[in-house]
Amino acid sequence: MARWEPNARQRLVLAALDLFTEQGYDNTTVIQIAERAGLTKATFFRHFADKREVLFAGQEVHSRLLADGAAAAPDSATPLEAAAAALDALTASFTAEQREFGPRLLTVIAGNPELQERALFKGAALAAALTSALGKRGVPDLTAALAAELAVRAFHRAFENWVDPASQQTFSELARQALDQLRAAAAALG
Amino acid sequence: MARWEPNARQRLVLAALDLFTEQGYDNTTVIQIAERAGLTKATFFRHFADKREVLFAGQEVHSRLLADGAAAAPDSATPLEAAAAALDALTASFTAEQREFGPRLLTVIAGNPELQERALFKGAALAAALTSALGKRGVPDLTAALAAELAVRAFHRAFENWVDPASQQTFSELARQALDQLRAAAAALG
Repeated sequence: MARWEPNARQRLVLAALDLFTEQGYDNTTVIQIAERAGLTKATFFRHFADKREVLFAGQEVHSRLLADGAAAAPDSATPLEAAAAALDALTASFTAEQREFGPRLLTVIAGNPELQERALFKGAALAAALTSALGKRGVPDLTAALAAELAVRAFHRAFENWVDPASQQTFSELARQALDQLRAAAAALG
Repeated sequence: MARWEPNARQRLVLAALDLFTEQGYDNTTVIQIAERAGLTKATFFRHFADKREVLFAGQEVHSRLLADGAAAAPDSATPLEAAAAALDALTASFTAEQREFGPRLLTVIAGNPELQERALFKGAALAAALTSALGKRGVPDLTAALAAELAVRAFHRAFENWVDPASQQTFSELARQALDQLRAAAAALG
């Protein structure tokens, strides 16, 4: 049995972000991340499949939160209202630590095409989960896919604003504002 | 100077698709692709950066076609009408051979998460190019981004239909129909 290591997961994320920022993502190994965190390689692999996944952990949990949030919206909710409820459920799960890590996370991803591809894949997975949940509410496929697309875009835009230390609004407020802006933009498509 | 090898690029694409289909993407090497095509590894690397790029060649050309097509739309065109003109320009560039390769291409990509990520990245690159071109027409950022997103979705949906041997319609007709369906779906967002 592995011994209990307090906050191992969070320590690994912090160590990885520090090392990626200091010496670059490509130049950083799993062993270095574990050492920086004061943990073993075996502990690393109990938490993450590889070094890339340190940055994208939570995809399954986030997908479930979106799906459950949409499912719990009132029957009378429009597709976008159900998507907004899904965003509420997702944004409510984020912690002050995730906000603090945010800027470094965004910088590391922006600097590496492989990570940008992985981020797109996570976005697509979140959108697929929400599309499916909206479909179960009776929303037609294409409309569900677009509502989910707008919600994931709103989530990303709101995350960038929320992790800005100068931001005064909650993640949920920022996400709903972003979704409103996207709805207005959709109405102007012609 | 490299000697001229007739249709080298197309032979490499065909050989790669055959090998990926027969023995799997991960199990296929660049050397095998070159051998199957009756060419050298050096010739392969004159055409493609690596084996993955055999499947995604054309990203820059496709981006440029979309941008030029949007730029050439009448001044009076709405954002979606300009996006439709961009799709016309892009779909017109596709050949009967690309249609023939299509089903194998889609099958190989669907079977490999790394290729799915790369396909998402190509879609994002196309959308970014079209977003930028629409921005130059004075379309506001968010509306441009959504129009581009709908256009790229329409392109992918239409490609899947067009490569179906049973399909009777042109790629352009299918893309415009898909864009119309997406517009209708956007109108139902609530």
